[in-house]
Amino acid sequence: MNARMWFFNGGTEGQFKISKMTAVTGESLPPATHLHVTQEGVVPSVAAFTLKGVVSNERYTTRSEKIDLVNRQVAIGREQARWGAFIALKKSEAWWALTQDERRAIFEDRSKHIHLGLAALPQVARRLHHCRDLGEDSPFDFLTWFDFESKDAATFEDLLSALRATEEWEYVEREVDIRVERATPAW
Amino acid sequence: MNARMWFFNGGTEGQFKISKMTAVTGESLPPATHLHVTQEGVVPSVAAFTLKGVVSNERYTTRSEKIDLVNRQVAIGREQARWGAFIALKKSEAWWALTQDERRAIFEDRSKHIHLGLAALPQVARRLHHCRDLGEDSPFDFLTWFDFESKDAATFEDLLSALRATEEWEYVEREVDIRVERATPAW
Repeated sequence: MNARMWFFNGGTEGQFKISKMTAVTGESLPPATHLHVTQEGVVPSVAAFTLKGVVSNERYTTRSEKIDLVNRQVAIGREQARWGAFIALKKSEAWWALTQDERRAIFEDRSKHIHLGLAALPQVARRLHHCRDLGEDSPFDFLTWFDFESKDAATFEDLLSALRATEEWEYVEREVDIRVERATPAW
Repeated sequence: MNARMWFFNGGTEGQFKISKMTAVTGESLPPATHLHVTQEGVVPSVAAFTLKGVVSNERYTTRSEKIDLVNRQVAIGREQARWGAFIALKKSEAWWALTQDERRAIFEDRSKHIHLGLAALPQVARRLHHCRDLGEDSPFDFLTWFDFESKDAATFEDLLSALRATEEWEYVEREVDIRVERATPAW
């Protein structure tokens, strides 16, 4: 198994209680009450759905942007960050047919994806997983896992609203938004 | 299975007869007399080794470079292109820790990877497969499959020599080079 792989199992058990699942664009996922986030693989007893992806190298970030990010970001899993969001995205074939310079121009020059994310740091922690180049077909291209404290929920909502209004998001053809709360204080 | 996935099975059967296997950097692969290139998966009866990878979006190419490439390149599998090469590469962690602008600067601005490839078109056809973000661990990051006519062998050798002399290649920590000839005229 790829050591950078993470599994998101939706079902009736897990460290996170699902508070809301929204099909923002396209089809939803099967109903689930809990989300189990693990590197151990599929947990069959709890899996109404399993999504997986690998943490990979950056595709658009420059060194100067990376320095800004590293200076401000925090790792996911802070004890006090009991609210989470799991956003699964699929982009269109039109997006993937663009060349690197065209995607970068949309992603950052015009949509300010990195700068919008920076504005939510350090309150909102984030880990991005790629699914498009897994060996098996995946219903999504990206899985992003966020956490934050309840007092920072508005910062997260502002980030999401801003991203969804960008030119980049015109290429999103499926988006499922799952909100969670950590079921137990320690995990 | 990912529809963009290809399998390279080394063994005692296959469309291609292996004429030479060279461990350019690092460890070699198990000995094999034939290479079977397929989207069907592992062919157990012939597999001394199986490597797989997915065709993916371009990571560095700009639109103007892409236009040049598309105008000159030919698809792999021409009837008369009976000579082939399979190059499996692993790059170092130092490469993957670079940001996008740093990798692009090495890849093209300083190593001229795209322009060296262009100089070998249309004689040398090429298909690149990515392995780093497969769900399972892969011993390589990239598998590249080339074909050409015997009269164009020198063009291919020049391309390889030029690439191996670049700054980009300082990040290659494993490279296996397998040369093949098509075993049967039609396949």
